[in-house]
Amino acid sequence: MWAQHLLTLPPKPRGFHLITREVVAAVPELPEIHAGLLHVFLQHTSASLTVSENASPDVRRDFERYFDRAVPDGWADFEHTLEGPDDMAAHIKASVLGAAMSLPVRQGQLALGTWQGIYLCEHRGRGGPRRLVLTLQGAG
Amino acid sequence: MWAQHLLTLPPKPRGFHLITREVVAAVPELPEIHAGLLHVFLQHTSASLTVSENASPDVRRDFERYFDRAVPDGWADFEHTLEGPDDMAAHIKASVLGAAMSLPVRQGQLALGTWQGIYLCEHRGRGGPRRLVLTLQGAG
Amino acid sequence: MWAQHLLTLPPKPRGFHLITREVVAAVPELPEIHAGLLHVFLQHTSASLTVSENASPDVRRDFERYFDRAVPDGWADFEHTLEGPDDMAAHIKASVLGAAMSLPVRQGQLALGTWQGIYLCEHRGRGGPRRLVLTLQGAG
Repeated sequence: MWAQHLLTLPPKPRGFHLITREVVAAVPELPEIHAGLLHVFLQHTSASLTVSENASPDVRRDFERYFDRAVPDGWADFEHTLEGPDDMAAHIKASVLGAAMSLPVRQGQLALGTWQGIYLCEHRGRGGPRRLVLTLQGAG
Repeated sequence: MWAQHLLTLPPKPRGFHLITREVVAAVPELPEIHAGLLHVFLQHTSASLTVSENASPDVRRDFERYFDRAVPDGWADFEHTLEGPDDMAAHIKASVLGAAMSLPVRQGQLALGTWQGIYLCEHRGRGGPRRLVLTLQGAG
Repeated sequence: MWAQHLLTLPPKPRGFHLITREVVAAVPELPEIHAGLLHVFLQHTSASLTVSENASPDVRRDFERYFDRAVPDGWADFEHTLEGPDDMAAHIKASVLGAAMSLPVRQGQLALGTWQGIYLCEHRGRGGPRRLVLTLQGAG
């Protein structure tokens, strides 16, 4: 069984945001899958997806602090500066974290660990709406 | 064809560990798949999975050295410190390396390169047992 | 529907290279898939795959500059030095960016965003030819 949905998330501020609920709500066929996979793909190169801790907002703030330090806006050696100081840094952060991931589906639900949630990582100051392609497959 | 298995790995010390053998042993249907994919997912946010060199233990030690330097325990700017100095660093390392990956299956075997192996990357000093969800699919 | 192909890319210089066209050309069944996934896997541990900006060559040069700084060749603490100063750094870069990714297929095409392209990231000075396993699946 295959199902594919487009999901557009409204603009979010720069930072790391929990989107597990929005993703699950966009895939109404999830309860029909006994064993399968949900593939989540972000159609952008300056935002990314990851799975991390779903409870403490300070974890998400620390992600932002760490990546801002590890990949500095306007790094002196960047050549691609035309689209602003946060653009090239955003491309690199996005590739380090990734635009795609597959999550297991088990007995009609995402088989995440207790503390896992899906993050949208917005690396630009004004990233705008972000579009995802959700692809569900599995055995009923 | 779909098969899904849970695999719990016993506690491992902080560092990078080869687990290819354990993963393959947990998926007895592998030889039945002519062309397919094995999805490996770790249900935790302070350990991760990657594929890298399968022969030299010094490579795995260098991974540990590098990531300890790149994401320092107890970094002064971390706000989330309640669960110990290695907790927040572990979340970040885990997202950089990732909790999920799919590997190709070909003629009944994982289609890894000659030098590739699956690593469990344990980012905590006392991470405890780690649970994986293995999802196999393919054509027989 | 399942299809699996091997694709060997000719040697490329160290750096980040767009390979979207080569990948698509190697999967002639793509137009038959209404909704599905293409899994791309690199059978090496010193090169990697990512999705990023597909238009500006300066973005790809900045990727190379950034990663060369973030994971220095011949870092003093590396123990695995037998295969040259770029070898261990290459393993780490490869794991940060990853050897595997799945991309959505929609109405017979890769469902990439307007600005997204597939990069082969060559982390070695003389990496040689690189082999990929392409696994396509989906509903017709």
